Amino acid sequence: MKIESLEELTGNSGGEKRVHIFNAGPAALPLSVLREVQEHFLNFHGSGMSITEISHRSTLFEEVINDAIDRMRRLLKLSDDHHVLFIQGGASLQFCMIPLNLALPGRPVTYLNTGVWSTKAMKEARIQGKDVRVIPTSEDTDFSCLPTDFRVDEQSSYLHFTSNNTIQGTQWHQFPDGKGVPLISDMSSDFMSRPIDVRPFGLIYAGAQKNLGPSGVAVVIIREDMLKRVPDALPTMLKYTTYRDNKSLFNTPPTFAIYIIGLVLRWLEETIGGLREMEKINRQKASLIYEVIDRSEIYQGAAELNSRSMMNVTFRLPDQRLEQRFLAEAGRNGFEGLRGHRSVGGCRASLYNAVTADSVRNLVAFMREFEEKL
Amino acid sequence: MKIESLEELTGNSGGEKRVHIFNAGPAALPLSVLREVQEHFLNFHGSGMSITEISHRSTLFEEVINDAIDRMRRLLKLSDDHHVLFIQGGASLQFCMIPLNLALPGRPVTYLNTGVWSTKAMKEARIQGKDVRVIPTSEDTDFSCLPTDFRVDEQSSYLHFTSNNTIQGTQWHQFPDGKGVPLISDMSSDFMSRPIDVRPFGLIYAGAQKNLGPSGVAVVIIREDMLKRVPDALPTMLKYTTYRDNKSLFNTPPTFAIYIIGLVLRWLEETIGGLREMEKINRQKASLIYEVIDRSEIYQGAAELNSRSMMNVTFRLPDQRLEQRFLAEAGRNGFEGLRGHRSVGGCRASLYNAVTADSVRNLVAFMREFEEKL
Repeated sequence: MKIESLEELTGNSGGEKRVHIFNAGPAALPLSVLREVQEHFLNFHGSGMSITEISHRSTLFEEVINDAIDRMRRLLKLSDDHHVLFIQGGASLQFCMIPLNLALPGRPVTYLNTGVWSTKAMKEARIQGKDVRVIPTSEDTDFSCLPTDFRVDEQSSYLHFTSNNTIQGTQWHQFPDGKGVPLISDMSSDFMSRPIDVRPFGLIYAGAQKNLGPSGVAVVIIREDMLKRVPDALPTMLKYTTYRDNKSLFNTPPTFAIYIIGLVLRWLEETIGGLREMEKINRQKASLIYEVIDRSEIYQGAAELNSRSMMNVTFRLPDQRLEQRFLAEAGRNGFEGLRGHRSVGGCRASLYNAVTADSVRNLVAFMREFEEKL
Repeated sequence: MKIESLEELTGNSGGEKRVHIFNAGPAALPLSVLREVQEHFLNFHGSGMSITEISHRSTLFEEVINDAIDRMRRLLKLSDDHHVLFIQGGASLQFCMIPLNLALPGRPVTYLNTGVWSTKAMKEARIQGKDVRVIPTSEDTDFSCLPTDFRVDEQSSYLHFTSNNTIQGTQWHQFPDGKGVPLISDMSSDFMSRPIDVRPFGLIYAGAQKNLGPSGVAVVIIREDMLKRVPDALPTMLKYTTYRDNKSLFNTPPTFAIYIIGLVLRWLEETIGGLREMEKINRQKASLIYEVIDRSEIYQGAAELNSRSMMNVTFRLPDQRLEQRFLAEAGRNGFEGLRGHRSVGGCRASLYNAVTADSVRNLVAFMREFEEKL
């Protein structure tokens, strides 16, 4: 697929007043999806009700949630061995649900520490008094790269890692090898951006608000054998089995968020053509910006070459004053969300699935022009 | 306020294809709110982004969440002693968070058992091994009435009750007296439907999807002194202090749901004129249906007179065959959501704030006609 034909695919060509959205999450959604939501907002499928008003127990909503699950299963080529669950609370609630449900008694849990989100995930396992083994990476260089060589205790209940680090702008291009230890991954910021082999994963989780939909729901893919670990005595809403047994309908789910996820997955499947095509597009988008950075005298990539993320391009300018000027001018020119995470500063362009090639080309032109003018 | 002038207030007069929504939750929203969401869906406040795309850390969203909190504080006349929190997971997650956070060591927790939701709330305290004291009510008559006389152990950490029982159609018209024990109430189905004196309440919680907005968020009102009880070692996302300390922005909140809650509260404050006016309207709506029931030979109210709910009018017909016919004809005539909860059967008209007087009058006419035709 040529990047030139992307505008049609994203449906983002006709949004007159639309800015270029590089938000880190909540983030850009395909304009065609937003338009569909808008058009049917007062009358969902001829029901005479808004999607926000229909019962989660209705046939109408059953179709919505089943369609979203089916599309995700097809896109990820899931076998019956993996379940798709929708759980509220974002990735942050998963940080505590994972050790609660999946840490085996008397066995350690292992975390690859690659930045802020990994650290938060570990912290929740520690709060629960688990035996947490940490594989350190590049804390000394602000987590600018990912480890290539490390050993995992074979007794580990699981090996947890963050597949893409939004804040640092690093991404695992080849997943770590658990050597038989089930992998658990926070894929919040690159889920559904590329094909993955789910088989080594005991659990994958992702907050929806980057590649999938609005905030307010996390997608959890869990392998059948992991469900056997779930202790009986957990609170009902914190057990993965509750969601599996009730098809994510134990209580009222976030219906609107799940509806949008379904529409985004339809766009991904039918308009983009699947995860392989999506990955090509995402690679092209990221390359365009990395090229500018690599040829520039003022933009400096924050992540090391081999660990660079396709999703979050992080870069710095020579000094804070110039960074502020860059961000201010970008804002005036209709580029939204380029400020780096408050914990590290700098600049960041988040290039999730729905960010258009047009937005990226415009940003590239702006970056070049900004440098030339100096 | 005259019930006749309601159509303008709810903005529900012009929805051509709109059905009459009596859903138990997710439920009707004011049409004027839905129209506003639709109109601005692609371009929120001139930002060039959808509300679903803006960052939860942006000034734009800060205004949204602060406005929703301020309106709720004014409507409920909250002093600085009470905090307004937004938490994902619905009332069902609160069932476990309440004993986790607020049960005092070595002291019992007391629950008034008035139906399915109270029973679920108790169950979560039992899972945690708390000393649960249950005040039984009318389990023998399918929870058709609420208790008037009971004793609460003064040592109780709290007294929990469900202010309105959606399934049974009962409602506390005068709240139970805790005699100094802090009250905790699941107000999911009548929150913001009438003025309340919040002072005796240590905590009030409500899933949004009945009177407030779409599903996917619960509102929690917590009194400052209760926050001192929160144990240190809880998972971060399960501590009320996390939400208080971070103004409900510890992690990405359900931004769209909070946005709609703000619009519904604006409607409640500016269009309806506050909770006293809302209560009058709700009383009138419920009276219209109870009158039909009380004068009917075929409709029989499920709740006892003194415990009848303003929010969920439950009734039965003489036999299942006739009930099925009633529900089928109602469906064909544009009345949505009249089937009773799957656990009890029968019929139920949920009359939350946004259900219009027009819808109620139409239902009343339909019920009369159905009876006359027999």
